Amino acid sequence: RIDEQRCEFPLPLKSQLLEIGADLPLVLPSKLGGYWIDPPLEKLRNVSPTSSQHGLDPESYDIMERDGEAKIYHEFFRSRYHHSFIAVDPSLGPLVLSVCLEEEENKLRVILRMKECSLHGTFSLSLFTNMPSAVELAKRLSDKVTVSKFDVVSYLKAPDLITAFDEHRVSSNFKFGVLYQREGQFTEEDILSNNKESEKFREFLSILGDTVQLQGFTGFRGGLDVCHGQTGNEAVFTSFNGREIMFHVATKLPYTEADPQQLQRKRHIGNDIVALVYQEGQTPFLCDVIKSHFLHCFVVVRRGSICLEHVNMYKVSVTAREDVPPFGPVIPDPPLFTDRSQLREFLLTKLINAEIACYKAEQFSRLELRTRSSLLESLHNELFSRSRCMMGDPSVAAAPPSESTRGPSEGSGGFIENFK
Amino acid sequence: RIDEQRCEFPLPLKSQLLEIGADLPLVLPSKLGGYWIDPPLEKLRNVSPTSSQHGLDPESYDIMERDGEAKIYHEFFRSRYHHSFIAVDPSLGPLVLSVCLEEEENKLRVILRMKECSLHGTFSLSLFTNMPSAVELAKRLSDKVTVSKFDVVSYLKAPDLITAFDEHRVSSNFKFGVLYQREGQFTEEDILSNNKESEKFREFLSILGDTVQLQGFTGFRGGLDVCHGQTGNEAVFTSFNGREIMFHVATKLPYTEADPQQLQRKRHIGNDIVALVYQEGQTPFLCDVIKSHFLHCFVVVRRGSICLEHVNMYKVSVTAREDVPPFGPVIPDPPLFTDRSQLREFLLTKLINAEIACYKAEQFSRLELRTRSSLLESLHNELFSRSRCMMGDPSVAAAPPSESTRGPSEGSGGFIENFK
Repeated sequence: RIDEQRCEFPLPLKSQLLEIGADLPLVLPSKLGGYWIDPPLEKLRNVSPTSSQHGLDPESYDIMERDGEAKIYHEFFRSRYHHSFIAVDPSLGPLVLSVCLEEEENKLRVILRMKECSLHGTFSLSLFTNMPSAVELAKRLSDKVTVSKFDVVSYLKAPDLITAFDEHRVSSNFKFGVLYQREGQFTEEDILSNNKESEKFREFLSILGDTVQLQGFTGFRGGLDVCHGQTGNEAVFTSFNGREIMFHVATKLPYTEADPQQLQRKRHIGNDIVALVYQEGQTPFLCDVIKSHFLHCFVVVRRGSICLEHVNMYKVSVTAREDVPPFGPVIPDPPLFTDRSQLREFLLTKLINAEIACYKAEQFSRLELRTRSSLLESLHNELFSRSRCMMGDPSVAAAPPSESTRGPSEGSGGFIENFK
Repeated sequence: RIDEQRCEFPLPLKSQLLEIGADLPLVLPSKLGGYWIDPPLEKLRNVSPTSSQHGLDPESYDIMERDGEAKIYHEFFRSRYHHSFIAVDPSLGPLVLSVCLEEEENKLRVILRMKECSLHGTFSLSLFTNMPSAVELAKRLSDKVTVSKFDVVSYLKAPDLITAFDEHRVSSNFKFGVLYQREGQFTEEDILSNNKESEKFREFLSILGDTVQLQGFTGFRGGLDVCHGQTGNEAVFTSFNGREIMFHVATKLPYTEADPQQLQRKRHIGNDIVALVYQEGQTPFLCDVIKSHFLHCFVVVRRGSICLEHVNMYKVSVTAREDVPPFGPVIPDPPLFTDRSQLREFLLTKLINAEIACYKAEQFSRLELRTRSSLLESLHNELFSRSRCMMGDPSVAAAPPSESTRGPSEGSGGFIENFK
């Protein structure tokens, strides 16, 4: 279906569009630097009339995984016969090792969970004369392991705890801010104070998702109030390739007359990691105009000014803090969309990948490491005491279930919310 | 098919058959006693002309299981996530406990292996406030358990060892002796010395199974030599409801001119637990005529003498040592078969069930207990040392694989052969 909608622009339109290259840029760098902009400004000014329409094929849009190996335990261990082992390594701290014998293939599948990361490997049994010990396997995965003995996990619900740990970064839920920037609006206050949604802005929102009533909403709510209307009456929501996305649309969040900062709006959008900026007019978006410790990336979309009324045209640009690595899909060259569904595929994929790329930025990766390290310690301790109980050791009383190793609950946007 | 072949005898034949009630009995009790005979002799002499043909329906023939619970571990634990625990109880000796959490049904499935027997149970998780310990579960299954702590098994091949133990009595292979008793043959020497097989005997053998060449035979060989012909050239073999049955037919085993005991024949038949006696003539079989520590039961079949040449008629009787419990299928009343396939179903089921019933006789049950107890100890010790190795404990060297916990190999008729 999407393929059919793809077509070369008719030549007269193409030359008109290329005029836009001379417009004001969508994004301007901040004076302090610290952001990258894509497409780069110099390129934007020199769009070659011979450039081709590449980057418009939604088939080539890959959604990134925040933790590609997180589900290995679930897939290859969880319900099968396997063993997990725990130890506190003198230098590495808590270790949780899982080993499964894949008899048909005569190999061992091993996951070693350390504070820094998890390592995964498979070893042919023919490498060993006897069944290798947990210590041997851990050392094969990391030569930093120095511990000489592991304890066996015997708690029957250990697979639930281990899965929750492994998948603590996995979420199919996303929330993004949506800012509405009108002509001449340069400041955060300007942008957050908009209340009226133009017809064109509403049309754009309909590309992102459906406008839903928050009262009684049962999908992913992204921190919005679905009971008492304290975060407005409606929001924009969509399902996309198995993910649920809630948009914090500035104009739909409560407006407070006496508050120039619009904290009721800032509270949600300022806690998002990625926001979308919709521009009507030629006013550029300043990379650091919205003050937030969380926001690391903005996907900017400008409604084009075209003479031919019946063609909607959107120009896109992305800016992110310098420590956010690049992410796909590639912005088409020229950075223009006329097809609604192409634009939707591009924007949603770009937004999701933006968030996942942002987690690699220093601030989040440090936070992730701290979270991971504390969850691993909880996991180790719970497995230890529960296994002791399981063996019947009367010296250990049953520990209450640890909240920290539970999976993310509905309404959570991931680990970030646990640390706010 | 079998149903179609069942039919009421035509009346003239029925009255002729009933005359046989006056023949000499198939089996005579020994002077020393110690055997039961079915049908009882007094009954045989008083077959009522109004008796019905019951016991002839193969649909009602149930093959007994030697150990009905042996496959529970294989079915409910082996490939799933579960834990096994070991301990040496002060009074019960080695214990091997397996516990599996059946999450969908919110229950624990537990097997406790003790020297005497295995106990199996399921417990709803709602019975417990916390996950119950191995000790708690073991005590729920047997109040004789007094141990206060179990060790966890962490050896990845433990399920293989545990399955081998649980199923050490399970075999789909059976071997039975077949004795050929002609008119006037009263002694073991007489019976074992027959070399010529009559047409009728061969016809009877064809009901039991196929005459196969032993050289290169690949089915269950029941201890016969399939390479060098040292146990004769052919034997009778059949497959029956997933079981493989090898018959040690006396006349097909090697005959030794100078040996009145025919040890080459006795060696195999005397090591069987059940033998079939085929009688041509009216000479009764004496319960204890064949001297053997193993043979506990004889299924005796006499070719009937009927005037109507085209109807084959077989009369059956069973004798067994007094400590062999009764077993099905019930012998029809009158104890006569005219249909080949009915007779086959009856005899094969009766032979298999006879063997399984014989294991309950004192001699075998004592032997089984000794075997079980020694296998359980091996299992415990191997699980213990291998689990220690698995944890990386350097104080325990890798133990060589224990032969005693291996499953029965092809060619074995069960545990008996390990103890000869």
